[in-house]
Amino acid sequence: MSVEVHIAGVGTTKFGVLPGHTLQSLAVEAARAALADSKIPADKIGWVLVGNFVGGIMTGQELLGPIVAADLGLSNVAAIKVEAACASSSAAVRIGHDLVRAGAEEAVLVVGVERLTGAPREALTSAMTAAIDQGTEGGSGLTFPAFWGLVMARHMHLYGTTREQVAAVTVKNRQFGITNPLAQYQKAITLEQVMTSPPIADPILRFDCCPGTDGAAAVVLASKSLAQKYGSPSVRVAASVLVNGPVRITDYKDITTHDGTVNAARRAYEAAGVGPQDIDVAELHDCFSIAEIVDSEDLGFFAKGDGGPAVTRPASERNTKVVINPSGGLLSKGHPTGATGCGQIYEIAMQLRGRHPNQVAQARWGLTHNGGGTAAAVTVHILEALK
Amino acid sequence: MSVEVHIAGVGTTKFGVLPGHTLQSLAVEAARAALADSKIPADKIGWVLVGNFVGGIMTGQELLGPIVAADLGLSNVAAIKVEAACASSSAAVRIGHDLVRAGAEEAVLVVGVERLTGAPREALTSAMTAAIDQGTEGGSGLTFPAFWGLVMARHMHLYGTTREQVAAVTVKNRQFGITNPLAQYQKAITLEQVMTSPPIADPILRFDCCPGTDGAAAVVLASKSLAQKYGSPSVRVAASVLVNGPVRITDYKDITTHDGTVNAARRAYEAAGVGPQDIDVAELHDCFSIAEIVDSEDLGFFAKGDGGPAVTRPASERNTKVVINPSGGLLSKGHPTGATGCGQIYEIAMQLRGRHPNQVAQARWGLTHNGGGTAAAVTVHILEALK
Repeated sequence: MSVEVHIAGVGTTKFGVLPGHTLQSLAVEAARAALADSKIPADKIGWVLVGNFVGGIMTGQELLGPIVAADLGLSNVAAIKVEAACASSSAAVRIGHDLVRAGAEEAVLVVGVERLTGAPREALTSAMTAAIDQGTEGGSGLTFPAFWGLVMARHMHLYGTTREQVAAVTVKNRQFGITNPLAQYQKAITLEQVMTSPPIADPILRFDCCPGTDGAAAVVLASKSLAQKYGSPSVRVAASVLVNGPVRITDYKDITTHDGTVNAARRAYEAAGVGPQDIDVAELHDCFSIAEIVDSEDLGFFAKGDGGPAVTRPASERNTKVVINPSGGLLSKGHPTGATGCGQIYEIAMQLRGRHPNQVAQARWGLTHNGGGTAAAVTVHILEALK
Repeated sequence: MSVEVHIAGVGTTKFGVLPGHTLQSLAVEAARAALADSKIPADKIGWVLVGNFVGGIMTGQELLGPIVAADLGLSNVAAIKVEAACASSSAAVRIGHDLVRAGAEEAVLVVGVERLTGAPREALTSAMTAAIDQGTEGGSGLTFPAFWGLVMARHMHLYGTTREQVAAVTVKNRQFGITNPLAQYQKAITLEQVMTSPPIADPILRFDCCPGTDGAAAVVLASKSLAQKYGSPSVRVAASVLVNGPVRITDYKDITTHDGTVNAARRAYEAAGVGPQDIDVAELHDCFSIAEIVDSEDLGFFAKGDGGPAVTRPASERNTKVVINPSGGLLSKGHPTGATGCGQIYEIAMQLRGRHPNQVAQARWGLTHNGGGTAAAVTVHILEALK
């Protein structure tokens, strides 16, 4: 006997460059919005789970669980920080989901937060490598642009994916960002602008990379009965999966197929009783433009190797109806690492409630995919609109 | 209907100055020992929860969940880092407990780990302040020796606690450490040595302070039925509580009474159906000698203000039978912050299995108390020996 879990409320800050804000001020702003949205009284909250990746390294602040709980006026709750690199807050959602589903809690608050701007660029690149094994490849100087550069070169080699197809991901997601008021970048970009941007880690160019972003997002997870009691604007959690994957390039059999994503997707579809063909709208972890292509294949939206051509294929010629990253994705909405997972769930919840600025018509099934490290921690959530 | 939760196995490294070891090598050593001790096959593990506080700040390594899982050969598990300052790994035990108790998982691995030596002393003191709100008191220069110095001065003022009584905590715990092979300090200290040690933060002297330590400890939590199936050397978890408390001095009504500890203890005793008078052996969070006195009062072992005189009171004149910190405590065994919570559970599990080097005779009920920040995250676990 398991309890039906709802996303009972969501909240967020603007994503972008937010000087004058702190981890705690951002987290509290998003959390208050989510609690208000859910209509569930704060005293029903049993756990406060704060997803955050590099708050310690970038700002010197840990203990975010109790600090955020205290600033929300919550006492006598269990409050912790959850870290799984760029998948921190969606991993925290998995814990919250499991506690509610098993009947251990009626309502759980999850907040994701990060501050990445204001420090020198090299400090950010260095902080991000905290998600690479420092005893092996991190110590050898591997960075994430370099990791994804290797993935992209190999994908082009194996499948004939073109530079233009990869660049088209950025063009598409920037277009979506224009009309998402939460997005860091709200300006179109041309294929030529992407293609002529400076090299970062060959073949990756500057506009293949998402920005480092400040922001927070929050979700209230609750049992169906509690959500119904308070009239929460719920969506149903059909699947919440977190799995580990390879933590080193050398552990990959094929760097263009990410086992973490494949395994998380398989388990999520099985739990939800749907397949990739049923998903109407998805937010994928496009930390680099090539990542969206790899992820869209590993999630089963396209066959392996078809993700590149699929980016610009007209909807009428697709076998799938899914709209990918209508928020603008990490490439345009921005990537406040620890907040990204909850931010994706915010976006999909709004789609399934029919209230998104880039609304996908008749969206019933939504999916989020969030990855940490070398797809070393991967979450997939499948959400369903309530009738 | 809730499942009976067992500590099915425990493992640890030596605590101390461990150059040449990394967070991952220490964590994997402790985790392997706990898995072997439990006799439960690794493929029964659903979650890997790594408790760690300042790994990011001190070593630049995050993503410890997936890294430790991978190095243990575990794939397709949910793996995260849990942070709640010095209570990180006991907070992780609370999650594991709740997942098993609610029937969401049959077995969960919790590992606590920290590396604190090898960096300059000021780097360590600075890293520890990550558990103080940097927006307020941390930014004003508060450190943990200063916090506990204020607590000690106030306790002496309100209750007449003497300098010698506080120093006697260190003398007692160092005495226990001599015969605990896991302890960082295995050498007696005299009252005079404590009293004449250099001032750190008045009235706290050097030997009132625990050391910063390297080490890891791990526990396997499992359902009673799984533990019995594999013949695990179990102890029963009678209560697992994590609560938040004040995150600033200014939020305290009385700095000598720690609401987090009081609330956690109340809930733990209620859940276990026992009181402080029933506890045979306890491991308390004596990060400073005065902390053991405050904690022993807030846990109900002694009346408020009686904790000082109680330290040297002969057993025959006590109303309580509890033996406090027979491991040597943080003052002698050492304080690898993120590992301390699991280390305490290791110690109590060994007591309740009758296998501790400083064995408390006929120990049936054991308690651990672990605090993070300004008692901002507090766990209390009550464990019972199986017949």
